Amino acid sequence: MTELIEDLAAIVGAANVLTGRDTARWDRDWTGHYTGAPLAVVRPANRDEVSAVLRVAHGRDLPVVPVSGNTGLNGGALGSGAIMLSVERMNRIREIRPEARVAVVDAGVIVDALNVAAEEQGLIFPLAFGASGSAMIGGVLSTNAGGANVLRYGNTRDLCLGVEVVLADGRVLDLMQALHKNNSGFDLRDLVIGAEGQLGIITAAVMKLQPRPAERVTAMVAMTQLDRAPDLLNALQDATGGAVVAFEFMPRAFVEGHFEVDPKAREPFDAPHEVNLLVELAAARPGTLGAVLEEVLSEWFETGGVSDAVIAQNEAQRSEMWARREAAAEIAFRREPALDTDIAVPIDRVADYLRDIEPRLRAVDPRCDVLSVAHLGDGNIHYTCYPSANEPGLIAALRAEIDSLAVEMNGTFSAEHGVGISKLAPMARFKDPVALQVMREIKKALDPKGILNPGKTLPVAVEGEI
Amino acid sequence: MTELIEDLAAIVGAANVLTGRDTARWDRDWTGHYTGAPLAVVRPANRDEVSAVLRVAHGRDLPVVPVSGNTGLNGGALGSGAIMLSVERMNRIREIRPEARVAVVDAGVIVDALNVAAEEQGLIFPLAFGASGSAMIGGVLSTNAGGANVLRYGNTRDLCLGVEVVLADGRVLDLMQALHKNNSGFDLRDLVIGAEGQLGIITAAVMKLQPRPAERVTAMVAMTQLDRAPDLLNALQDATGGAVVAFEFMPRAFVEGHFEVDPKAREPFDAPHEVNLLVELAAARPGTLGAVLEEVLSEWFETGGVSDAVIAQNEAQRSEMWARREAAAEIAFRREPALDTDIAVPIDRVADYLRDIEPRLRAVDPRCDVLSVAHLGDGNIHYTCYPSANEPGLIAALRAEIDSLAVEMNGTFSAEHGVGISKLAPMARFKDPVALQVMREIKKALDPKGILNPGKTLPVAVEGEI
Repeated sequence: MTELIEDLAAIVGAANVLTGRDTARWDRDWTGHYTGAPLAVVRPANRDEVSAVLRVAHGRDLPVVPVSGNTGLNGGALGSGAIMLSVERMNRIREIRPEARVAVVDAGVIVDALNVAAEEQGLIFPLAFGASGSAMIGGVLSTNAGGANVLRYGNTRDLCLGVEVVLADGRVLDLMQALHKNNSGFDLRDLVIGAEGQLGIITAAVMKLQPRPAERVTAMVAMTQLDRAPDLLNALQDATGGAVVAFEFMPRAFVEGHFEVDPKAREPFDAPHEVNLLVELAAARPGTLGAVLEEVLSEWFETGGVSDAVIAQNEAQRSEMWARREAAAEIAFRREPALDTDIAVPIDRVADYLRDIEPRLRAVDPRCDVLSVAHLGDGNIHYTCYPSANEPGLIAALRAEIDSLAVEMNGTFSAEHGVGISKLAPMARFKDPVALQVMREIKKALDPKGILNPGKTLPVAVEGEI
Repeated sequence: MTELIEDLAAIVGAANVLTGRDTARWDRDWTGHYTGAPLAVVRPANRDEVSAVLRVAHGRDLPVVPVSGNTGLNGGALGSGAIMLSVERMNRIREIRPEARVAVVDAGVIVDALNVAAEEQGLIFPLAFGASGSAMIGGVLSTNAGGANVLRYGNTRDLCLGVEVVLADGRVLDLMQALHKNNSGFDLRDLVIGAEGQLGIITAAVMKLQPRPAERVTAMVAMTQLDRAPDLLNALQDATGGAVVAFEFMPRAFVEGHFEVDPKAREPFDAPHEVNLLVELAAARPGTLGAVLEEVLSEWFETGGVSDAVIAQNEAQRSEMWARREAAAEIAFRREPALDTDIAVPIDRVADYLRDIEPRLRAVDPRCDVLSVAHLGDGNIHYTCYPSANEPGLIAALRAEIDSLAVEMNGTFSAEHGVGISKLAPMARFKDPVALQVMREIKKALDPKGILNPGKTLPVAVEGEI
């Protein structure tokens, strides 16, 4: 142990090898559901130090768990007995090239910091989710993070042109291209993105930036029936030429949950509604988005589909609308035990899903409570179930219902948060078995000792399986 | 041999196992540069037959080369002594779901056929290139084909949500999802796309469709200087809110080449110009694109950047503009020997590239001739060199100059056509060496016998290399 610490200190400096109580920041996740004391936390300053740390760990068959902002909800960045490799010191925005609309960044750059730097050049980095003030590029790439703007800008994978990756044995894979066309062999970039640190540690990236919208309109819209929301989305897309950036659903229970976690929280409308949507439109050209939105909503109001609407008149009103939506994690975890999930179904099945899941959960646990919030435009529902007792068997049974129904509706048990530890069971149960075999074959080829983030992402093969 | 043929015939029927002269259609590529007589051509009717054929081949260690439209230019779909597996009988558009904007298709569906079916639903499949009347979905996915609309809609990879793949040993990998968010393990879909049949044979896919533009404007624009073209592109994007679909460059020599291959070809302008651009704008909302284009071009005409412009007034005029651009392959290969390439550089280096490459080629071969055509909006140049003699050493030396300069300018030697056989040399010379190692490790893990499309994509490792 002492020799290991010395070897690591020789690479990153003694001040950047933390042990014992100094590792407390890294021994639990944000939810507190996942815990584990690391052997040590190392904080390399650059790619070459990451490579040297991995060579040391590889030589000793020691597990290495990469961590950046530690904002994940699946226990993917915990490493009991492992060397945790934090990229937080690698936090330089190396270059922003506005004419090419790209940023070259280290893995430890915080998402909001990149957005601020982009805005100084009249551009945006459009990844938007509640934890963007802490989450770092390395983490959002490794989990292929989604969020509220995926409808318009895609997942993190869609925002990345190039990556630099240190492999399990310390080799450096340099794919730092800024090209929109480059068909030169297998797509290793997209393989590493979303691989949750199983195949290598991302140390830098070339990210795409987008033009800052010249016009932006944000509104809260109350609907009479959730199942008509996809039609409203299509109507807005058609009327605006595809200008919808966000289309988020919050039921009444979510709005009320917000009152509990934020003393400044206010009602979105004069009267309470069951179906509350946050809608944002943006266009590169200044124009008539506000007028078009009002026109569409008026038509829907007259025919009874929309029962109320408030359009933000200034940035403060817009921020208030978004603050509610971005408090989702605080709202979901304000009660314990909480079983949080991250499923997706085709957008026209969201209302069916929410209608059908409740009785199935009540059949398992008649006294459970539920809460949902959805990136409705992506069909992505964060469904939380509060079981009546903190029993692992009960929680697993409830989780199985939530996942099963999503899969029955041609959806997925894992939309945007990643697998980590929390979704190993549905991975084993629902993922295509050949896909699991191929993932294990690739993992074995690139990390034969299995030192990178062990115990996450890939369920253990049952006996006889490849 | 006879026993093999019998085994294959038992799977696909005797009429669908071709040997000897009946394989002539598959023994050369479109250019005639690459030839090779297959052992047999098999034409399975469905995924299960593909799987059975691969089990037979795998059991006998026989190479298998997948082929669909055979429109590639790199020799990637030739298999001397191999079983060629043609997906042409698997040509069913299984389903188009207009509200979800997806199509579920077999690998043998022709690109234009998918577009025709999409248009019947008010949608488009936006992949656009000269061979789209013959190229099939399996091939465009396996090569991640690009084309003239990548600027707006992305490469084939960006147009695909799910794939079905048969692996080397016959296992079926089912990733036929239609979801926009699905983070459940490694991104095997994108790994298989663009892998040129090295990792498996794509048998079906879920493809994204796009709304049919309500307004479309196409123009030929003559500029005084190519190096100002990126500014014109940015001006058009800013003025139209990002409506540029295509931004293609054709030098005078290309326009003249068109006269040689098409007797109906006409001058694009009253007077000849050196810098000819094909510009297409499209918007989902009917509006004022034509007026905006005229306004921008007028400003540029007054300041001297644009010297002439013709806006298509009807579909016939638009077709004439596109026919010139899409004759690129015929124009490039009208003379022999022709060395065709497919490089990309950052868009603001295209003019520098075209200025600098010619003297470098003349230093190698003073009497060579050259021709270029570019997807300028992507920085992707198809550069053709006509050497003064058909000597392999000379041709290799010229190719090395073309590739080297692209790489020196932070570009790539392989933008959109794929590697196949023709780019093995630059893969070995310019590709990140660790990336090559990782590709070989993945290839070995998924196809340990190396039966899938051997001799393509991955250069042979030199002694001592992994």
